[in-house]
Amino acid sequence: MKEETDKRKAAGTAADPREKYMRAALKQAEKALALGEVPIGCVIVSGDRIVGRGYNRRNTSKTTLAHAELIAIDKASRKLGDWRLEGCTMYVTLEPCQMCSGSLVQSRIDRVVIGTMNPKAGCAGSILNILEMPEWNHQVEVETGVLQAECQEILQQFFRQLRQRLKKEKALRRAEAAGAADTPAPAAATPAAAEGAAPGTKE
Amino acid sequence: MKEETDKRKAAGTAADPREKYMRAALKQAEKALALGEVPIGCVIVSGDRIVGRGYNRRNTSKTTLAHAELIAIDKASRKLGDWRLEGCTMYVTLEPCQMCSGSLVQSRIDRVVIGTMNPKAGCAGSILNILEMPEWNHQVEVETGVLQAECQEILQQFFRQLRQRLKKEKALRRAEAAGAADTPAPAAATPAAAEGAAPGTKE
Repeated sequence: MKEETDKRKAAGTAADPREKYMRAALKQAEKALALGEVPIGCVIVSGDRIVGRGYNRRNTSKTTLAHAELIAIDKASRKLGDWRLEGCTMYVTLEPCQMCSGSLVQSRIDRVVIGTMNPKAGCAGSILNILEMPEWNHQVEVETGVLQAECQEILQQFFRQLRQRLKKEKALRRAEAAGAADTPAPAAATPAAAEGAAPGTKE
Repeated sequence: MKEETDKRKAAGTAADPREKYMRAALKQAEKALALGEVPIGCVIVSGDRIVGRGYNRRNTSKTTLAHAELIAIDKASRKLGDWRLEGCTMYVTLEPCQMCSGSLVQSRIDRVVIGTMNPKAGCAGSILNILEMPEWNHQVEVETGVLQAECQEILQQFFRQLRQRLKKEKALRRAEAAGAADTPAPAAATPAAAEGAAPGTKE
């Protein structure tokens, strides 16, 4: 099994098209990570063509509308010239929130393929399942667990780095408060070191 | 009571600030009506200042992101320079859908004041109450029924005109199918008459 996966990777192709598109979504998540944003990415596929890409840039763009899914839906709609995304599938690294799950129903997309679930706030089965409610005039088919390990890992990497950065910043503040100006601050507590641990850089 | 309301209207002011802002939301809904869109409008207020306005233009802009609420949230965020709309209130003519209710939670807005409810698809109490779920890290206070009659009337006006237009178009197609080319078509079934009944024009 592992050997087969390695071969696929080496060949640069994926026999399973869901994995191919989820890798494209992960590429988007990496762009968010590089900006220091929570790394979530997605793509929208029509036929065998990617018609919309998006990554989370909420802090950078300073608007709630900069969630990965909304950006991709907007791009796909502009590309296809219709707000209705019938026949399309979204591949997203993390289970969508209330807003993004709602946007998938509103855009009448056919299907959403999810990398990893969000047990604390997800709305495609975790807290609610907004996507498949019979009360709406449209339901979105949900599939989960495609490249789950990779989708989870990029998030864990981000939060690990964030915790380290906050810990270093706290240590720095403590050292300053203790009047440590006369003695050299520990290496890890310098602003430069804290900066180095910012998301998007190596630990 | 009625006399008092008439006096207020005559003076061009509203003693109740909620009515003043809901009238501003109705003004936005009128802009949607003029475009032939389902007339839904909203404003976002911070302190005593309107910081975001929006009206539904989903068909015109060809994107799901053109719901009134999302447009207003985006504008308010850009104006305030933050995706967090803490301390703000949204006034919206119709109960928000799944996506827009989710966007209110995500934007951490304090409160939403609703004109009229949407029993078929509303998510601020009708089908779901996404806004006040204890599972989220933020809840939005909900108030309903402000200028309910006016908010309902503008929607009823739109759907009345839409039904009339569709009826006329159907009659026109029937007349054409019956080979009515040799006999004059009934006045109501001419393309010009059907055009005249388009939303945004007087009946």
